[in-house]
Amino acid sequence: MFEQHPFGKLIAEYIQNTEYPKQPADLYDPIMYILSLSGKRIRPLLVLMGAKLFGKENLQEVVPASIAIEYFHNFSLIHDDIMDKAPLRRGKATVHQKWNDNVAILSGDALLVKAYLELGKSPSAHIPDLLNVFNKVALEVCEGQQYDMDFEKKSNVSEDDYLNMIRLKTSVLLGGALQMGAILANAEQEQQQLIYDFGVNLGIAFQLQDDYLDVYGNPETFGKQVGGDILCNKKTILRIKTEQLLDEESKEEFQKLIDLDTIEDAEKVSRMKNLYAKFEVDKYAEDIKSRYMELAYNKLDSIAVSEAQKAELRMLADTLMHRTR
Amino acid sequence: MFEQHPFGKLIAEYIQNTEYPKQPADLYDPIMYILSLSGKRIRPLLVLMGAKLFGKENLQEVVPASIAIEYFHNFSLIHDDIMDKAPLRRGKATVHQKWNDNVAILSGDALLVKAYLELGKSPSAHIPDLLNVFNKVALEVCEGQQYDMDFEKKSNVSEDDYLNMIRLKTSVLLGGALQMGAILANAEQEQQQLIYDFGVNLGIAFQLQDDYLDVYGNPETFGKQVGGDILCNKKTILRIKTEQLLDEESKEEFQKLIDLDTIEDAEKVSRMKNLYAKFEVDKYAEDIKSRYMELAYNKLDSIAVSEAQKAELRMLADTLMHRTR
Repeated sequence: MFEQHPFGKLIAEYIQNTEYPKQPADLYDPIMYILSLSGKRIRPLLVLMGAKLFGKENLQEVVPASIAIEYFHNFSLIHDDIMDKAPLRRGKATVHQKWNDNVAILSGDALLVKAYLELGKSPSAHIPDLLNVFNKVALEVCEGQQYDMDFEKKSNVSEDDYLNMIRLKTSVLLGGALQMGAILANAEQEQQQLIYDFGVNLGIAFQLQDDYLDVYGNPETFGKQVGGDILCNKKTILRIKTEQLLDEESKEEFQKLIDLDTIEDAEKVSRMKNLYAKFEVDKYAEDIKSRYMELAYNKLDSIAVSEAQKAELRMLADTLMHRTR
Repeated sequence: MFEQHPFGKLIAEYIQNTEYPKQPADLYDPIMYILSLSGKRIRPLLVLMGAKLFGKENLQEVVPASIAIEYFHNFSLIHDDIMDKAPLRRGKATVHQKWNDNVAILSGDALLVKAYLELGKSPSAHIPDLLNVFNKVALEVCEGQQYDMDFEKKSNVSEDDYLNMIRLKTSVLLGGALQMGAILANAEQEQQQLIYDFGVNLGIAFQLQDDYLDVYGNPETFGKQVGGDILCNKKTILRIKTEQLLDEESKEEFQKLIDLDTIEDAEKVSRMKNLYAKFEVDKYAEDIKSRYMELAYNKLDSIAVSEAQKAELRMLADTLMHRTR
């Protein structure tokens, strides 16, 4: 999506030109492998955009922090995939699948350490503040992953709990990425907070849209199986809101759809969509997503730089929110 | 061993007084659990001693870095125990055993991040240098663990490979701990290197002694089953050296002891000890251990502070090397 952006190229180049030790192979090969699966590289882009927003000119000084964020993200993918027993990531075998769990645990650990190594290449004067933000966010991402796993076993997940979970698991990293850029551009504390809040709210909206697209996305452009979340009984905003609104009659139908594994896939998706429609949770999800988008844009509006300087971030947010996959 | 040392108390107090969030419980409870198993706390002690050696007076400023080292060590224990499928740690259930693998992976990750959080509480001016050393050492420990796992499957491990593995897995963390103390005391680069080298060589000697005591320790004071390494076919310095010296006749006996699982425990240990005795690898292990101790003391001798200031570290090293368990 942003591979053609000059910042995207800066990041891709840095990662491609990084040399890893040949040995021990089972430590470094999986790191090169996961990084080669690339993905959208939105998070490192946000670090660079956060810096540029506040007038940073020497962007080479920002690259290490942006790589730190990308490494951290990939570390979390390796470990999350073990925990979720996921066989595929970006259409390719996950690390624990291609190697084994032990290799995935240890190479993930090494990649997390390498994230901090990159962070340590930032200009010295900024390292304490960068470390501070990075650590806070990293710990929150761990908390989010734990809540996510807890929710799988929990019968009643509230909407607030869910929103808090996606904030921790997904959104704070976007906010932190932007804030780290701001730090490197010497932005004031208050401005840092605004750009962080922009990122967090954008991230929540992004995740809510993920839930929405999984059910209502265009099968031709979505890239994944539409209805996948319904089929694996994932607790998304749509399901959580529906459960909250169920009447007696629908309760039985809902429970059947969750419990019975004899219902065919297409039928299960279609019947669950009927319930979603009955309680208008599709509309609800869109509303709440828009609310977070608005919150995000309000924060961006408050930032004390010119509209022209904000244009690129606004465009990025628009692109992310109008994606179809 | 050092619980009564004033530094030991400082560390114990700090850990006891640290409050962890109540939620998510499966993230923070395992962290509190592993830290409560305590252990000898030698590594954080080394950070404080490294600082004191170079005249640091305000030791409160050194405590966070020392806790960072202790947290890192405990993170590595949690993850190593998963990888080694170890049921017990310090006589208690390991984290993955008491909870499960996922909990152990994620709480280990969180503890690693918390190590960096503690590091970030050090005086700002020193954070870039501390981060640098910490990262380098942390990555090497991952490499060491990977080599250790590789060696289990490898038929021929050379002595050099083995020494390099224990240097990475165990010793650089001791060296790094001392160096971080030196950094906080504003020691010069050259002095930092000397105390680092002292720690690394001491660490290698310590690990070689571990191999030795596992076979020749006094069963009454050793605490673990004497001969445990022989029984699980662990590639220790004794075994590696023996394999290197085997003649045709002994080769057969050696291979039997490794391959047959019909030999009773006591007999297996006694017959392997016969081989060790035949090739005098017990003496060899003691010699090489002494060589590393001497290297360590040479480095300590070269450090540009008074003998009186070195006394405590010398005592610590002596105590460690004359331990019986």
